[in-house]
Amino acid sequence: MGVTVGVDIGGTKIAVAVVDEVGTIIAQDRVKTPATDATQIGEAVAQSVNALKKDHDVEAVGVGAAGFVDAGRRTVLFAPNIKWVDEPLADRIEALVDLPVVIENDANAAAWGEFRFGAGADVDDMLLVTVGTGIGGGIIQGGRLDRGAYGVAGEIGHLRMVPAGIRCGCGQYGCWEQYASGRALVRETRDRIDAHIEQAQPLAALVDGDVSQITGQMVTEQAQKGDPLAIELIADVGRWLGEGIATLAAVIDPSVVAIGGGVAKAGDLLMAPAKAAFLRSLSAPVYRPQAMLREASLGNDAGVIGAADLARTR
Amino acid sequence: MGVTVGVDIGGTKIAVAVVDEVGTIIAQDRVKTPATDATQIGEAVAQSVNALKKDHDVEAVGVGAAGFVDAGRRTVLFAPNIKWVDEPLADRIEALVDLPVVIENDANAAAWGEFRFGAGADVDDMLLVTVGTGIGGGIIQGGRLDRGAYGVAGEIGHLRMVPAGIRCGCGQYGCWEQYASGRALVRETRDRIDAHIEQAQPLAALVDGDVSQITGQMVTEQAQKGDPLAIELIADVGRWLGEGIATLAAVIDPSVVAIGGGVAKAGDLLMAPAKAAFLRSLSAPVYRPQAMLREASLGNDAGVIGAADLARTR
Amino acid sequence: MGVTVGVDIGGTKIAVAVVDEVGTIIAQDRVKTPATDATQIGEAVAQSVNALKKDHDVEAVGVGAAGFVDAGRRTVLFAPNIKWVDEPLADRIEALVDLPVVIENDANAAAWGEFRFGAGADVDDMLLVTVGTGIGGGIIQGGRLDRGAYGVAGEIGHLRMVPAGIRCGCGQYGCWEQYASGRALVRETRDRIDAHIEQAQPLAALVDGDVSQITGQMVTEQAQKGDPLAIELIADVGRWLGEGIATLAAVIDPSVVAIGGGVAKAGDLLMAPAKAAFLRSLSAPVYRPQAMLREASLGNDAGVIGAADLARTR
Amino acid sequence: MGVTVGVDIGGTKIAVAVVDEVGTIIAQDRVKTPATDATQIGEAVAQSVNALKKDHDVEAVGVGAAGFVDAGRRTVLFAPNIKWVDEPLADRIEALVDLPVVIENDANAAAWGEFRFGAGADVDDMLLVTVGTGIGGGIIQGGRLDRGAYGVAGEIGHLRMVPAGIRCGCGQYGCWEQYASGRALVRETRDRIDAHIEQAQPLAALVDGDVSQITGQMVTEQAQKGDPLAIELIADVGRWLGEGIATLAAVIDPSVVAIGGGVAKAGDLLMAPAKAAFLRSLSAPVYRPQAMLREASLGNDAGVIGAADLARTR
Repeated sequence: MGVTVGVDIGGTKIAVAVVDEVGTIIAQDRVKTPATDATQIGEAVAQSVNALKKDHDVEAVGVGAAGFVDAGRRTVLFAPNIKWVDEPLADRIEALVDLPVVIENDANAAAWGEFRFGAGADVDDMLLVTVGTGIGGGIIQGGRLDRGAYGVAGEIGHLRMVPAGIRCGCGQYGCWEQYASGRALVRETRDRIDAHIEQAQPLAALVDGDVSQITGQMVTEQAQKGDPLAIELIADVGRWLGEGIATLAAVIDPSVVAIGGGVAKAGDLLMAPAKAAFLRSLSAPVYRPQAMLREASLGNDAGVIGAADLARTR
Repeated sequence: MGVTVGVDIGGTKIAVAVVDEVGTIIAQDRVKTPATDATQIGEAVAQSVNALKKDHDVEAVGVGAAGFVDAGRRTVLFAPNIKWVDEPLADRIEALVDLPVVIENDANAAAWGEFRFGAGADVDDMLLVTVGTGIGGGIIQGGRLDRGAYGVAGEIGHLRMVPAGIRCGCGQYGCWEQYASGRALVRETRDRIDAHIEQAQPLAALVDGDVSQITGQMVTEQAQKGDPLAIELIADVGRWLGEGIATLAAVIDPSVVAIGGGVAKAGDLLMAPAKAAFLRSLSAPVYRPQAMLREASLGNDAGVIGAADLARTR
Repeated sequence: MGVTVGVDIGGTKIAVAVVDEVGTIIAQDRVKTPATDATQIGEAVAQSVNALKKDHDVEAVGVGAAGFVDAGRRTVLFAPNIKWVDEPLADRIEALVDLPVVIENDANAAAWGEFRFGAGADVDDMLLVTVGTGIGGGIIQGGRLDRGAYGVAGEIGHLRMVPAGIRCGCGQYGCWEQYASGRALVRETRDRIDAHIEQAQPLAALVDGDVSQITGQMVTEQAQKGDPLAIELIADVGRWLGEGIATLAAVIDPSVVAIGGGVAKAGDLLMAPAKAAFLRSLSAPVYRPQAMLREASLGNDAGVIGAADLARTR
Repeated sequence: MGVTVGVDIGGTKIAVAVVDEVGTIIAQDRVKTPATDATQIGEAVAQSVNALKKDHDVEAVGVGAAGFVDAGRRTVLFAPNIKWVDEPLADRIEALVDLPVVIENDANAAAWGEFRFGAGADVDDMLLVTVGTGIGGGIIQGGRLDRGAYGVAGEIGHLRMVPAGIRCGCGQYGCWEQYASGRALVRETRDRIDAHIEQAQPLAALVDGDVSQITGQMVTEQAQKGDPLAIELIADVGRWLGEGIATLAAVIDPSVVAIGGGVAKAGDLLMAPAKAAFLRSLSAPVYRPQAMLREASLGNDAGVIGAADLARTR
């Protein structure tokens, strides 16, 4: 069997990779995302694929994109950032690259990558939780990707954690990603600085008191240096993370929960409180086999690797 | 193809039915559940199956039982009421009936029955929510039953709805079934009577003030007569029901949500507020295709019909 | 005893009234609030007082202003809208009117007015809850105004109703005024319209779908015409209102809770669900004497009447 | 001025003390509470008072009792434990001791003691929070005890902290004392042990796994030895404590919050997280003068000292 190409269309860049059947990237390209124009994005993808095709025996192309994808894996029904509505992305790219193309939700593609070749390679049932600015995710059940009736399963960031809770961009209140995400970490850090908490002085000093400059990475680095408040702030995110995973475990019963995304780079500062909260929040914990929480292992490549593999007819 | 037998082992009775390939019950039996002894339960099931076998060309037996079932569908890992631990139920029954036997979680069996021949027969992705004393459920994705890594997926009643909420028998706080169930309906009704709310007089009168006698059915009947408090109490349950379904829809994206169980007999008194709350609580509602909420259609037979069909190798 | 003058400095206008010893307004004036300049505001107040002084035997002046007032009732420590910090308002006005002047928080002044001559005139212990854009309030205990150690008691709108709840302008989350206020009513109405709930069509039609134009008054008028969603939206505000009052009642044990402010104009549409929720949410309701919930009776005049009376040495 | 006697009627013992005008105990007695019979309790109090009267020039007697006390300070309207209803306790004791007697709610008496001679002696506005099995409290405003319209102000333990939260003995859900009390500490400890959390092994070992034997004192002692889980459990109670105090501060604006009761013996293990949570949870923290959180200083004597002082006509 030949190789396939995986594409991950992000808000700022498009990653393209030639991936073999065991998930190894053997060549790759990266281009800037051309504004939000659908035609230009299709052309940029095609150009990159065509270049890689010259040196590799590419059989098919898998494309991961943010948004809702139709069940036939050909059309982007709606994309929040790129303003696509019913965009026939597979048709558009196929016409330019002369290869079969399938479209997949980007979080699902990443989940599939981790499942096939990463943190879930040894199991049949896995949940990927990507903790970045928000929370993304994907669900694998019995070796299959759960896409849902309309291709939008796995929107786990919008699990309601708090009735009448913090307003979310999705129109609801109390969504999980308002509590267990980089956005939450930054918001809580700013609040502590704004409240003139003494413990917040070191974090405030990093940005000369300009809370708009605080980033999640700053908090992580500060925590790694031993700053007690930074450690507590990341632990709070971890606690919410573990509580949400416990509630999802009752619904989908995975054997592995892989945790990826930028915030996961905090490592044990996040994972230890997440695991403690997970165990503490499990329903009927004594009788129920427990999922293992693991860090995801493919990093940013999970999307292209998963998309490439999904192009192999799955 | 011949017929199969479906068995539903409940706390007080065992239902057994011969079911054909289109889900029609062509013969049935019902016996009292013999205490909590595993051997006797196996024998009672076998006796009933053997009797039905005489008149029908039975190919296989599917057994639905409360509790956690192993991935191979042969062993009950743990059953909360019957005190089974690692009970080899399939082996035990096979030895007595000389037919292939598969075991399934009872809520999953009911979900499968509704999916194949009931409220979800026209779709590929369905969620069954059974609102009885507690909440049970089952998930169908892409035409397959989601059993989870350990056979315990679909424990949707233990979705956490309220952080630090009402204590649940599962050891956690704030589980969905503490808010959207018959138990919740009875509890809230009792609270109103205990609080000497004037509106609660008619309900109190039904039991001569003895709140221990209140049942969910009483409240439903009172609501059907137009009692404003009873209507409000059922609507509250409906509201919690709809809010929980909306959060699950973000995770599993079904096209149909079937609502069954004893409380669902309240009909529109429950369904109308449930639907309103569901629509109000959807994440990104404008862009997301919405699941249809329907009443389940097989009633108490869903379990035996589903179990019988699952015995056909699925 | 002669008359006193009461002043209510609002964001857009300054109300000034000559009030006799039984709370009757015998003359009044109203001027535009001159921007946010402290000097000009003091001068505007003085000019109006001096004009009224010509025809009336004025003994003292009481001034109600938004913000934190010092215990000596002379200085505005901080005002959120007018940007006053340590503003010596009493000194400034006394120098211009040649009368003794006392300053009071405006919500406290209104509470005092209702207590002395309005909804609480027959009791010694009263809570005023003003439901306008936000929630304001004042507490009377044993015939005395509870001003707190720093003049900022009675900030009841910032009672936390929901942990991790909706963000409040005060920097916290889940404050009562995010749930039981005109702002909440407008927000929830907009959400329903944005969610394309069918029931929201009549409300949407009022503003041609431009949700930025929705006002609380519109929702009230629509409810008074029988619109089911508008009725429900006001009832939701009423429910939160009653629940918050019940929690306050456990702390301060009033005999009367007077409910005023613009949203209270919805009358029974608000009061009936508020009372029901209040009764349902009381701690130990059977043994505890219950406060009476009443509509406030002085309307917008409560502030000037209370401020005038507080100028009589209390 | 002569001395007065303070009495504190507890569930198991009655404390009686002769107290001088600066709050010093100059003689005391302690007797077992005679069952729940009102007559016998009155006689036991009188006997003890009469004995002390022989050696001291006693002017009056103040009696603190659990329950609701009438505004005239003579009758216990309702006592939860002793089953008093409309008990004329002052009359009963006066007839036996020939001295003026006043009755006061016991938590109010303790608050008054701390206010006059303990943690609040230097301020005019104080809140006492007693963290024992539950939460009790008392409020002093402007140098006066806030008794409420029906003598039941200060029931701060029943502030609702979590909508639909943990069931409370008072009939409501989510009361503060379900989260920030000795009862909560014990419950959470038991939950950790029941959940077989590894960190809970040392605590479980203390009681040979019999969770019914866990006490708050055990957890405190274990925390003082450095047990990480015990420290975390007390910190959780502290966090809820601080959050509740912040919400009360918005309503009553004290300058000192004194924290007493058995759980407060954990010292900084409780106070440090309580203070951090308090500061983090204040409304408009930058502009609002902040209350000081202090440990109460009179211990178990606060009740008798306060009751004795209240007998001096206040």
